[in-house]
Amino acid sequence: MTKTSRSGCPINLTLEMIGDNWSLIVVRDIMFGGRRHYRDLLNKSEEGIASNILADRLNKLVDAGLLTKTNDPAHKQKSIYSLTEPAIQLVPMLAIMGAWGTRHTPASRELSVRAKLLDEGGPSTWSIFMDELRHIHLGATQPERSIIQELTTAYEAAMAK
Amino acid sequence: MTKTSRSGCPINLTLEMIGDNWSLIVVRDIMFGGRRHYRDLLNKSEEGIASNILADRLNKLVDAGLLTKTNDPAHKQKSIYSLTEPAIQLVPMLAIMGAWGTRHTPASRELSVRAKLLDEGGPSTWSIFMDELRHIHLGATQPERSIIQELTTAYEAAMAK
Repeated sequence: MTKTSRSGCPINLTLEMIGDNWSLIVVRDIMFGGRRHYRDLLNKSEEGIASNILADRLNKLVDAGLLTKTNDPAHKQKSIYSLTEPAIQLVPMLAIMGAWGTRHTPASRELSVRAKLLDEGGPSTWSIFMDELRHIHLGATQPERSIIQELTTAYEAAMAK
Repeated sequence: MTKTSRSGCPINLTLEMIGDNWSLIVVRDIMFGGRRHYRDLLNKSEEGIASNILADRLNKLVDAGLLTKTNDPAHKQKSIYSLTEPAIQLVPMLAIMGAWGTRHTPASRELSVRAKLLDEGGPSTWSIFMDELRHIHLGATQPERSIIQELTTAYEAAMAK
């Protein structure tokens, strides 16, 4: 527990780390949207995140050990953000949050398709998805099944309707 | 989706409802601590919530349909707060949040005991806990096993050490 923590409760400390209106939105966009550059995260934001808020949250997430920021070998002068292992372990929380949201908020049909797939797939699907994220962000071996591909295909089909 | 929503994404809408630093702390204290009166929630707060923030979040949670506020039949002039069915369905999210916090934040031993029990128990334990909350807050039939009793016993044993 750091000096400024409100309490040592694990729920409280988790909320102190990511319990604001925007941090998990940024994690979501990197995790599900594959957006790893500042410009992409800014310009493609479904919620229209402001540039100063995005910059602040990216720094905060790096400081909290949920993201790493490195030079992108493919683009000079560009930084690329990667999820860390603790951030990848947020998959079940985001899956459950998405499932709760499809039931108890007026979520739109197109933007609920991926949450429903993750909910139906359950922990075994989340586990493969986490392995896939470990491949993309941490250089681990690529799993045979691509959950990202399945989610993207379902999302694009819903958008085309 | 209401007019002021940032997007129709179920994760975003969930965060718009409860994604602030305090709302889930209040839900946690009602859910796990059995605190249902304003004074209890204020005076027993582990995080030292300020009275104006508590009052604001209680109103916000009632407006969002996560709490109901009624007159306490046992205490004249006192209001009692109850969890609604959507709030009870936050149990898995809070269980997973607590488990994540015990792994990735400097959570204290005593305050992690309940999170660890819920994590080890998994979805079948959460389901009984939700039935118990439906009994307490919604008047449903009482389940045979009391998860609250088990969590309280474990917590008190850890505090006594």
